[in-house]
Amino acid sequence: MYTKILQHVSRYIELSPQEKEEFTGILIEKKISKKQFLIQPGDKVMEEFYVVKGCLKAYYLDEMSNKHILQFAIEDWWISDFEAFFNDLPAQLHIECLEDSVLLGIHKDSLETLYERIPQFERFFRLKITNAFVSLRSRVLSTLQKNSKQRYIEFCEAYPNIEQRVANYHIANYLGIKPESLSRIRKELVRT
Amino acid sequence: MYTKILQHVSRYIELSPQEKEEFTGILIEKKISKKQFLIQPGDKVMEEFYVVKGCLKAYYLDEMSNKHILQFAIEDWWISDFEAFFNDLPAQLHIECLEDSVLLGIHKDSLETLYERIPQFERFFRLKITNAFVSLRSRVLSTLQKNSKQRYIEFCEAYPNIEQRVANYHIANYLGIKPESLSRIRKELVRT
Repeated sequence: MYTKILQHVSRYIELSPQEKEEFTGILIEKKISKKQFLIQPGDKVMEEFYVVKGCLKAYYLDEMSNKHILQFAIEDWWISDFEAFFNDLPAQLHIECLEDSVLLGIHKDSLETLYERIPQFERFFRLKITNAFVSLRSRVLSTLQKNSKQRYIEFCEAYPNIEQRVANYHIANYLGIKPESLSRIRKELVRT
Repeated sequence: MYTKILQHVSRYIELSPQEKEEFTGILIEKKISKKQFLIQPGDKVMEEFYVVKGCLKAYYLDEMSNKHILQFAIEDWWISDFEAFFNDLPAQLHIECLEDSVLLGIHKDSLETLYERIPQFERFFRLKITNAFVSLRSRVLSTLQKNSKQRYIEFCEAYPNIEQRVANYHIANYLGIKPESLSRIRKELVRT
């Protein structure tokens, strides 16, 4: 159960066997079935989640019930309504499982204790959040500077093998293009 | 020169007098005049900057030479081309001074040494980058869910007193609206 997350952490920091034990001791396993919600608008968000297995999407429903997908998460990614989690605000996002998923949650309070007891985790989460910030900034920039085809290629690099797992119209929504345009782009890429 | 940045840091972590000295010892003062560029596309970006005094904008120029303002920075903010800085890529942004500015830069290498010598800075920069990530995510969400007036109010809260310092068309550009719409919104707000 903990092999993957420990490998993931050890790419950034080095932990002693005791520290590993202490870390895994605070993780809360959560199994969620396809189409179930991990988070819904209005929820109090006390955990962030590491994906051991499965696939999820985080989206915002606007007043006209249009869906805007902000993030996918597959194995080795973290997901939550981060704005709600970090700023103690009610959730604004839906986070829905696209496949049966196994997650490991960390509670906000356990995280604070973890920082006190094993300060290396300050480094780990600093590096993780830096990656998230840079990816988001580069996604904002991408929509300004790149065409749909380039953004689709970037998406495939960021989420390897997700094409087989997520419906076309989800990917199109994430990229802010029409499903027809996505099909056209894919055909073009197969040809080249 | 260092009073403001030390106050800023002490809102997040507590430093001994020696640690304060060590920290300020790595800061590089930079004075830049209005209309000069701190960073231009293609630059190698080795520093991030704390604003002691002044006002700057970070923007992207697309292929059609349309300007897209990503960030303003005033006193007590940090600015850089963060994607370039963190990922060792050439700069994509212009960072231009809107007023004569005084900055304190931290070099990438000094930052790594700082983390080793005073690990509390892991915490400081984790918290700063978390704020930046959450603000950016909430800005992306704002464009989906809020009208121009609400976004203008949020902008005024995030950048207090910037209205007197930055031209209307810059603020309109940042909000993704026309300058005429911004004038209309301001008139409406004065009336209410």
